[in-house]
Order: sequence, then C-alpha cells, then structure tokens
Amino acid sequence: MEIRSFYPQPRLLMGPGPSDVSDRVLSALSRPTIGHLDPDFIFLMDEIKLLLQYAFQTDNALTLPVSAPGSAGMETVFVNLIEPGDKVVVCRNGAFGERMRENVVRCGGHAVMVDSKWGEAVQLDQLERALDDNPDAVAVAAVHAETSTGVCSDVQAIATLADKHNCLSIIDAVTSLGGIPVKVDEWGIDAIYSGTQKCLSCVPGLSPVSFNDKAVQRITARKHPVQSWFLDLNLVIGYWGKGSQTGGKRSYHHTAPVNNLYALHESLLMLKEETLSASWQRHQLNHQALKAGIECLGLSFAVSADVRLPQLNTINVPEGVNEAQLRQQLLNDWQIEIGAGLGDLAGKVWRIGLMGHSASQPKVLTLISALAACLVAQGGSVDSLAAVKSATKVYESAGN
Amino acid sequence: MEIRSFYPQPRLLMGPGPSDVSDRVLSALSRPTIGHLDPDFIFLMDEIKLLLQYAFQTDNALTLPVSAPGSAGMETVFVNLIEPGDKVVVCRNGAFGERMRENVVRCGGHAVMVDSKWGEAVQLDQLERALDDNPDAVAVAAVHAETSTGVCSDVQAIATLADKHNCLSIIDAVTSLGGIPVKVDEWGIDAIYSGTQKCLSCVPGLSPVSFNDKAVQRITARKHPVQSWFLDLNLVIGYWGKGSQTGGKRSYHHTAPVNNLYALHESLLMLKEETLSASWQRHQLNHQALKAGIECLGLSFAVSADVRLPQLNTINVPEGVNEAQLRQQLLNDWQIEIGAGLGDLAGKVWRIGLMGHSASQPKVLTLISALAACLVAQGGSVDSLAAVKSATKVYESAGN
Repeated sequence: MEIRSFYPQPRLLMGPGPSDVSDRVLSALSRPTIGHLDPDFIFLMDEIKLLLQYAFQTDNALTLPVSAPGSAGMETVFVNLIEPGDKVVVCRNGAFGERMRENVVRCGGHAVMVDSKWGEAVQLDQLERALDDNPDAVAVAAVHAETSTGVCSDVQAIATLADKHNCLSIIDAVTSLGGIPVKVDEWGIDAIYSGTQKCLSCVPGLSPVSFNDKAVQRITARKHPVQSWFLDLNLVIGYWGKGSQTGGKRSYHHTAPVNNLYALHESLLMLKEETLSASWQRHQLNHQALKAGIECLGLSFAVSADVRLPQLNTINVPEGVNEAQLRQQLLNDWQIEIGAGLGDLAGKVWRIGLMGHSASQPKVLTLISALAACLVAQGGSVDSLAAVKSATKVYESAGN
Repeated sequence: MEIRSFYPQPRLLMGPGPSDVSDRVLSALSRPTIGHLDPDFIFLMDEIKLLLQYAFQTDNALTLPVSAPGSAGMETVFVNLIEPGDKVVVCRNGAFGERMRENVVRCGGHAVMVDSKWGEAVQLDQLERALDDNPDAVAVAAVHAETSTGVCSDVQAIATLADKHNCLSIIDAVTSLGGIPVKVDEWGIDAIYSGTQKCLSCVPGLSPVSFNDKAVQRITARKHPVQSWFLDLNLVIGYWGKGSQTGGKRSYHHTAPVNNLYALHESLLMLKEETLSASWQRHQLNHQALKAGIECLGLSFAVSADVRLPQLNTINVPEGVNEAQLRQQLLNDWQIEIGAGLGDLAGKVWRIGLMGHSASQPKVLTLISALAACLVAQGGSVDSLAAVKSATKVYESAGN
C-alpha cells in the first residue's frame, strides 16, 4: 500500500465540532516548535492564563488548559474533586451528562441522577428535591450547553442551588464558552471545563479548566491521592503555576503540546479583540438568520425556543427525508459537514453548529442554499431564494 | 497588559525533547481542520495505524496514537493492564522508571522495585531475582531509553525474562522509537508506548501505543472497570478500530486532535521514506560525530559507552564551569536549547539530544562551535576548530 502526504479537502464545518479554524490560528499553530521550558514559552503560558481568565470571566488563579481534548478536561475536574465514597448529584439531559456520571463512578463516587428528557433543560425543581433528599452530596454536576441536543441549561441557578446545599458546582462549558455568556465568578461556579474546538474555533486537543478557591481547597485537602498521574492538578500546578504564588518558577511535569498552545493563544487573542459580548451577539445573530432561512424551508427546531442554543441547532428531519443521505450529499456536493443525532435523537435530527469562525453570514447563506438543494434532490418542494432572502434580511436589520 | 500574537524565536532544539520539527511536518500540521468522523479522516487514521505498525515493527492490531502527550500514553498502558491488587515489577534507573511506579500505585497495584543507579542500565540478574522472589507478579515494566540519564536498557532481554515468568512486559519507548532499534514483535514486547516529540520529530501532544493479543486479552478479561474514562481502550477501540474487525465502522469517543494527527502522519511517512535502519544509522553517526567533537573539547560522557544512547547524550559538567550559565548563553547567543540534569544528576550534567530532525551534520557542528565558545567565555581553553574538524572527519569517513 502506497502512502502519500495527506491533503484534506477543505470543508465547511457546521456540525457539533470541530468548527472552522481561521487562517490566523492555523498559521500560529505551525510556527516553529520551541521547548516547553523555554523562557519565551513560559511567557506565552502566562498570557494564555490571562486570556483564559477573560474568556471564563474569572479571577481564578487556577485557570489553565489541560493538555488533551475536552473529555480529559472533564476527567481532570472529576478525578481531582471527587474521592471514593463521595456522593455527586449529576444532571443528565443528554450524552454529556451521562459521561459525567461515568466519571463519578470511575472515581469511586456515587452518582445521584437528576434526569430530564433529551431535548429539555435541567429542571431546577427536580434538582432541588434531589439536593434536599441527599444532604450528604458534595457536588452538583451539570452541562451548560448539551452538544448532543442543543439545549442550554441555567447553570447560574444550578450553581446557586449547589451553593445553598453546601455543594461544589461542576459545570461543563465545552460548547458554551465564547458562544453564549459564561460568567464563572458572577455565577459562583466552583469548577468548569471547556474545549478549544467549539466556539473558540481553535484546533481540537486542549481543554481549558478553571477552579475557584473553594474547589482548590477541596483538592489540597484530599485524603486519597488523585487516581490519574497525568491529570493530577497538584503536579500540573507545578508546571503551569498557580497565579502569582509561583514567582515564575516552573517544574517539569509533562511535555506540553507546544504548537497547540500557540494556536490557543491566537484564538483567545482573537476573542479578546472581538470582545466576548460581540462574540455572543454574533452567534445569536447567525442563529437568527439560520432560523429564518430553515423555517422558510419548512424545517423546524427539535428544541423549544426558550432553551435553544444559538451555536448548536437541532433540526427535525422531515417525514420522508433520508437523513444520512442528505448529510452525505452536503458533504460530497457542497463540502459541508453537519452532525447526525446521537442517542435518543439518532436518525431523528440534524445538528447544525454555528460555532466560532463557522458563525458567519457567507457560511450560513451557503448552508441554507445547500440544504434547499438537498431537500429538492429528495423530492421536496422548497424555495431556496426565499429562504436565503429571509436570512439575509436578518443580517440587514442588524446593520450587517 | 497588552497581548499580541506570539512569534517564537527560532531555536535549535538539542535537549531531551521536543526535537526540531521539519517544515514538512509543520506544514501538514496547519492544513485545514476537518471533522474527526469525516470519511477522509477515517482514511488518514487507517494509514497512521499502518505507519505506526512499521515504526514499532509490529503486526499488533491494537496500535494507535493516544490523544495526549507521552505521559498519557504511559498512563493508558497502566490503567488498562493493571487492576487493584496486581503486583508489578518495576525497573527504576531514572525519572521515568519512578513515574512508572507512581502509575502502578495509582492503579491500586503493588510495585516491586528493581533499582539501579541513575546512569546505569537495568541489571538483568537483579530483575531475575525479583521475578523469582515474586512469582505472583503479573507484569514487568522498564524504560528502554531513560531520558533522564541517557541510558539504554536491554528490553529484549527484559521482555524474555518477563515471558519466562508469565509476566506481561510493559516498555517505555518514548525516547527510543525511531532513534534506535525497537522491534516489538521480534522481541516479544506485550505493551509499549512512545511520544511524538523525540526521534519522530513531530510536535508534542500524541503518544503512540501498541498492545499484542496477550495484552488485549488481559484488558478484555478485567474484573474492574478501567479507572480512566478518557484512556479506557475498550472505548477508544470503538473509535480507532481494532484492525480489520471493525469493518470501517467508527463510533464517537472523544474529539481527536485532528491537526496533530496530520502532523504525525507526515512525520511517520518521512520515517518510512528514510527507512528505520537509515534513521537508526543517522542517529548513530551524529552521535559519533558529537562524541568526537566534545571529547576534543575535553568533555566526557556520564554514561559508559556500552549503554549510551546515541540520541540522548549526558555530558559531565567540567569542574569550575557554571552549568546553568552555559545553557543560558547557548540559548541567548546561539538560540540553542540543551537540557539540564534531572534528579540525582541535577547540576552535574547536560543532556544533549540528537533526536529526529535535530540529528543532522550542520546542527551538530553548530552545537560543537557553540559549546566551545561558551566554555571559552567561562575561562576555558579549548580548540574550537580542532573539535569541529574531528567531528567533520566522522561524517567524511561515513561518506557524508
């Protein structure tokens, strides 16, 4: 078998992630590799911490990117905060709530589940009942933006409830960070993790995390050692430093993914230049335009408007349409990737991501045209131009 | 604080890793990101598996890159193979043997240590005694190329001893793969892990691993679930596939670091084009040239010739020379990074890496000239030109 250099076909990434990565970030990614203990690199690490604090809206000293994808960020939070025998209330309204439960159990913890249907937000009254019934719980875990369903839960209220019941709040912000407001300090979130390949539009492979003092106290007061050596924050802190305390001294823990950190720095810098509020508005605007367009095509949302994520749109597959065939055609003819449904929603929905660099007018208009063409190819009767026009109107009213 | 785009100063990376990354690999790294379930990406994954099988000299179906740096590859091997209560004989002759012990303990295992001095190879008679004394041991763990000392241990003999005592052999090949012979099948190694940022000259962030059928059987017969969700091979296999059995079907586990995998593919392809034996010879040749040059400068090796690694040279700091100041001058004046000593060797040695793309004549000659200048700056009296000449002679006799 002859193997040659790999040149990917350029795609429009409008699925559940990764999202399109800008040339600016790709260019940063490919700058020459330097050592992970190089003074210049230590300087870069300090800037990344500052930029992450801005993205998370926090002053938490323990704010850093874990050297592996979002799933490892999730695991970092659980293995450091949860000890064997700990009871954790886990809110599950999709695939990533289930993954949180898996993490609790593998840490030797006991998970009390607060279940909502796929496609619904976490029910606060249910959560409160679970907390009342389990006064010995030590933490509440919930997903802010459920990537499997496109649902936004009220994590500010969840964090408040957790605090009221003397629990730490653990929040999954993989798909929310940069796309919708995430205000760690103002909302009183104790521990949070995210990913780089969603609304930050960086390459996949890193997972930003942040812990407040209450969470750090829990880590330092552990009775059992952290089960993971690689993710043990007591060791990672020695390399990344815990704010000003380290005085610039760094000790080797593992070889950091140097080039990925160049890219993260650049993508966070772009977010800072745009500002968080402008980024949130951009995601919302593109969502509204997509909504106008697809509703004109006769498509509908699987999630009710009050809990709908702008950056992840779950669209019902209409009667008589072959969902896999349509995705295939989008990929083959238009080079556009959208996502399939997961779990309870498999075969029933498409997941359209408008994340980071993918949340832009030309991409949304292209997607609407492409969807129209694919629906027509399956015998549908839709007005492509009208759909594009109604989306365009949304941009125009916003002054774009 | 104003933050700007980061442009690293170009360094010659001649420390213990990362090594210099070629333009070809950096260029592959920065190609447009595509989805981790894209059919083109699945195709790339299959090729990466084939290329890794070549690099490891194995037909093992379970051969893949873990989505995180080498330390996570180490952890992948231990959390999947070791169950609570298992006894593991760990050979410790440097920092990475100690890290293996840490991993065993964090998996709930019991580590029986076979200790050698830092700077010496694993003693086979000691290992055999430990195995005789511990017939209930289930595995033997050893480091092939100790990055902390520059020592090569005979892992073929270690694997044979392990097998004779009904133990699995677990080998750390982070610094050896691509630089010196690593023959997984021929040597009967059961489980092995490596890193991408050493002799493969790829960016840091991935860890190739390989398991033979005996190791896989142990994983599938586990009584306790793997403590890490992210590194659980039972789940990872669903995404990467276990050879031909999967028939091309892949299920989502985590978002793969897509761009890093482009880079790994390219660096492995370069290795295949050069061939393994030519790469081993190149590392050896550059080591011999460095040796000629630095001995001419009056420097000596900390490790005896029979167990010396060509790709990681541990050099004694001469009496009266400030080791940190010399490294600082190399970095500031010459943009060259070399490594400090670790642990028992801190302050006593320098670690000079000739790994992958850094193992080349112009770089070795530059380093010799730079070392000479820095020694002179500290009051030494050395003949720079003579040192360069004797290194050049080594290349000439090899027909370079």
